[in-house]
Amino acid sequence: MSGKLESAMSSLVELFECYALKDGDRLHLSRREMSNMFHEELGDLIKRSKDPQKTAEILTNMDQNLDGQVDFEEFISMVTKFTMCSFDYFTMDRTVVYTSRCGNPW
Amino acid sequence: MSGKLESAMSSLVELFECYALKDGDRLHLSRREMSNMFHEELGDLIKRSKDPQKTAEILTNMDQNLDGQVDFEEFISMVTKFTMCSFDYFTMDRTVVYTSRCGNPW
Repeated sequence: MSGKLESAMSSLVELFECYALKDGDRLHLSRREMSNMFHEELGDLIKRSKDPQKTAEILTNMDQNLDGQVDFEEFISMVTKFTMCSFDYFTMDRTVVYTSRCGNPW
Repeated sequence: MSGKLESAMSSLVELFECYALKDGDRLHLSRREMSNMFHEELGDLIKRSKDPQKTAEILTNMDQNLDGQVDFEEFISMVTKFTMCSFDYFTMDRTVVYTSRCGNPW
């Protein structure tokens, strides 16, 4: 039975493939597929970003080898940077929630 | 409304905190918390790994700055490497599933 971590990893792979598959090449996101993904998946997060410049930089520099498309490694590297710079957003007011959701840690 | 990508990012942060919070320090995983996470969350994936040596290397090198604990950046860098080397596992037999789950891409 896969845990929450394996499920999150699996859904990142599945999500990448869902968008990449649109033009038949499931291993690369085209520019258009990338832009669809940003709007559909990260629209809210981009709007609420406390550092819009940093966010724009992460997204624009996704195509690290400048081949005009994004492979899975480039995609997940973006996800890593984006999650890092949204860490505070994701953990806002969570300490209270935690003690109930993770069980009493002390 | 958050998309699948934002949910996966959020659950990575939440998962990290759930394990890190056990000793009260929600920003670092201790060795023991790390080991609990591996067994509870990645046990199946580790067993099924096609490259056990690579998997072991990723997990052992998680504490990149050798301070005896793992912060979120080190954790998500491990998740990135682990997802990369499990990409084939996560995409096995998925092309058929995809056309139904993502809608017809052509």
